[in-house]
Amino acid sequence: MMNTTDTNSKVKVRVPATSANLGAGFDVFGLALDCLYDEVYMELTTGKSIEILGVEGYDVPEEPSENCAAVAASKVFEMKGYAHGAKMWMRKCIRPKSGLGSSAASSVGGALAASKLLGGLSYEDILLCAGEGERVSSMSAHLDNVAPALLGGFTIIRSYSPLDIVRLEAFSSMGIVVVLPEVEVSTKEARAILPESAPVKDVVRNAGNASAFVAGFIREDIALMGRAMVDAIFEKAREPLMPWLSDIRKVAIGAGASGLSLSGSGPSVIALFDKREHRGKEISKAITEAFLENGIDSEGFICSVGRGAMEISEGAVI
Amino acid sequence: MMNTTDTNSKVKVRVPATSANLGAGFDVFGLALDCLYDEVYMELTTGKSIEILGVEGYDVPEEPSENCAAVAASKVFEMKGYAHGAKMWMRKCIRPKSGLGSSAASSVGGALAASKLLGGLSYEDILLCAGEGERVSSMSAHLDNVAPALLGGFTIIRSYSPLDIVRLEAFSSMGIVVVLPEVEVSTKEARAILPESAPVKDVVRNAGNASAFVAGFIREDIALMGRAMVDAIFEKAREPLMPWLSDIRKVAIGAGASGLSLSGSGPSVIALFDKREHRGKEISKAITEAFLENGIDSEGFICSVGRGAMEISEGAVI
Repeated sequence: MMNTTDTNSKVKVRVPATSANLGAGFDVFGLALDCLYDEVYMELTTGKSIEILGVEGYDVPEEPSENCAAVAASKVFEMKGYAHGAKMWMRKCIRPKSGLGSSAASSVGGALAASKLLGGLSYEDILLCAGEGERVSSMSAHLDNVAPALLGGFTIIRSYSPLDIVRLEAFSSMGIVVVLPEVEVSTKEARAILPESAPVKDVVRNAGNASAFVAGFIREDIALMGRAMVDAIFEKAREPLMPWLSDIRKVAIGAGASGLSLSGSGPSVIALFDKREHRGKEISKAITEAFLENGIDSEGFICSVGRGAMEISEGAVI
Repeated sequence: MMNTTDTNSKVKVRVPATSANLGAGFDVFGLALDCLYDEVYMELTTGKSIEILGVEGYDVPEEPSENCAAVAASKVFEMKGYAHGAKMWMRKCIRPKSGLGSSAASSVGGALAASKLLGGLSYEDILLCAGEGERVSSMSAHLDNVAPALLGGFTIIRSYSPLDIVRLEAFSSMGIVVVLPEVEVSTKEARAILPESAPVKDVVRNAGNASAFVAGFIREDIALMGRAMVDAIFEKAREPLMPWLSDIRKVAIGAGASGLSLSGSGPSVIALFDKREHRGKEISKAITEAFLENGIDSEGFICSVGRGAMEISEGAVI
């Protein structure tokens, strides 16, 4: 059936870091970034299971049942009725638990690589398999990072059942500063601190801000997007875990950002700015200095909205 | 100071019906309709207060302190420091408590007429004065109908404080069917039945639908807008007051509508359709027939997104 020695028996894919939530779009918005990537190399074997032969970069579990990429790939194998195995290498450049979609990138990498090897999966099926990889790291199959990691651009998850995702193209003047501080906030902990319900006035505020963010995105109005990067419910609940957040926001806006929010559940932050104003370096510097004043080292990235996951030239990563 | 005999001493304005909420945009979205209007004629006098000399059409309070238009106008007078009075006539073509922004239209009519007579109010101030008129009928100064009634098109209230309203232009293929049933649901009652808080999963669903609705609006994707006209929180809470709602929705979609929601707090419903499919009459007929099966007479209007309030040729209405 499957010839593991033909040219489709090995593949390498590259998947971008992503930023979810962006203020009011909790569990809904996701943005692909063009600054950091994970890579997954996969080769079909005549074995019975998926083996991970190596991980370069950040440390992640190499036991296949605990590895997002391997779990996502095995879901693709299951869906395609493929009874053999594969060997995998990974390059992890996106720090786990950074709020930059590290597990989503690995999950999409595993699912997309497996899909390219076995052929014929729809984007929707790849998303669902990647979601199963995501479940390994965060206990739930959220797609808010998975969708932009696969599709690129800005994604809106309108509905999970039926799955309905809106993808919008980026515009050229949209500048992004992402700053990753040297602190760890686990996705699980950041989820556990969330309320189970929200007051109606905050529901209305969030719907207004989420809607206005989308209007700003399509109108290429970065000032409006920045004003709308406000979350009255979830980010507010997480502030005790990241007490520096309001300081950082103030400093970023003072340096020229139109707005700032946590990236996903943090600790990374994402700020938007108008590239035509050329203030990306200034904003990044202001944020890293403000982190330092809070006793935290951090690394800043000036980037743009990214493309989605893609196959890159073959060959082992390592 | 003010010469009540000059050409600016009288004015007539026409204000459109509006539809708020549109599913997930509770207290956030508003749409101007081009099918029904209220008119306000106003003339400055040397008196001390606002007098209502007549109301044509639907019955509304003629006591100035209970009349939305007069209250809104008096707020404008107050803001401008105008110590004299005015006489007013109104033509009420929008049924009160219909869910079609009847009180908002009168409020905007009063505020805009007064502003045109005294000159120089910003749109924001006119909105705030009209909001005070709205408060008379619904106990709160919501702007979700007031904003589109004044500005036209589709409006998103991002924030009340500071006031931040996004206005989007309509697109030509967007068809609207509004059906007004012969039942009454008071705005107060429809508000009283609302929950005080909402589960997080519904908050996420609403943010996803509201965001997708905006994306659909700007992309001119009526099918997406229809799918996104879903409200897991507020409309669901109101269904006991309007138990026919799910029937009506099903029938409308069966007849070619892309989606349907309550208009405001009901009882009117609003359905969207693609004008290029020419199914407006069919949808309107299907909805009115479905109301009749529920024992309710109703009137259907096939319309488009409307312009905002405007001054029309002078002269008394009556």
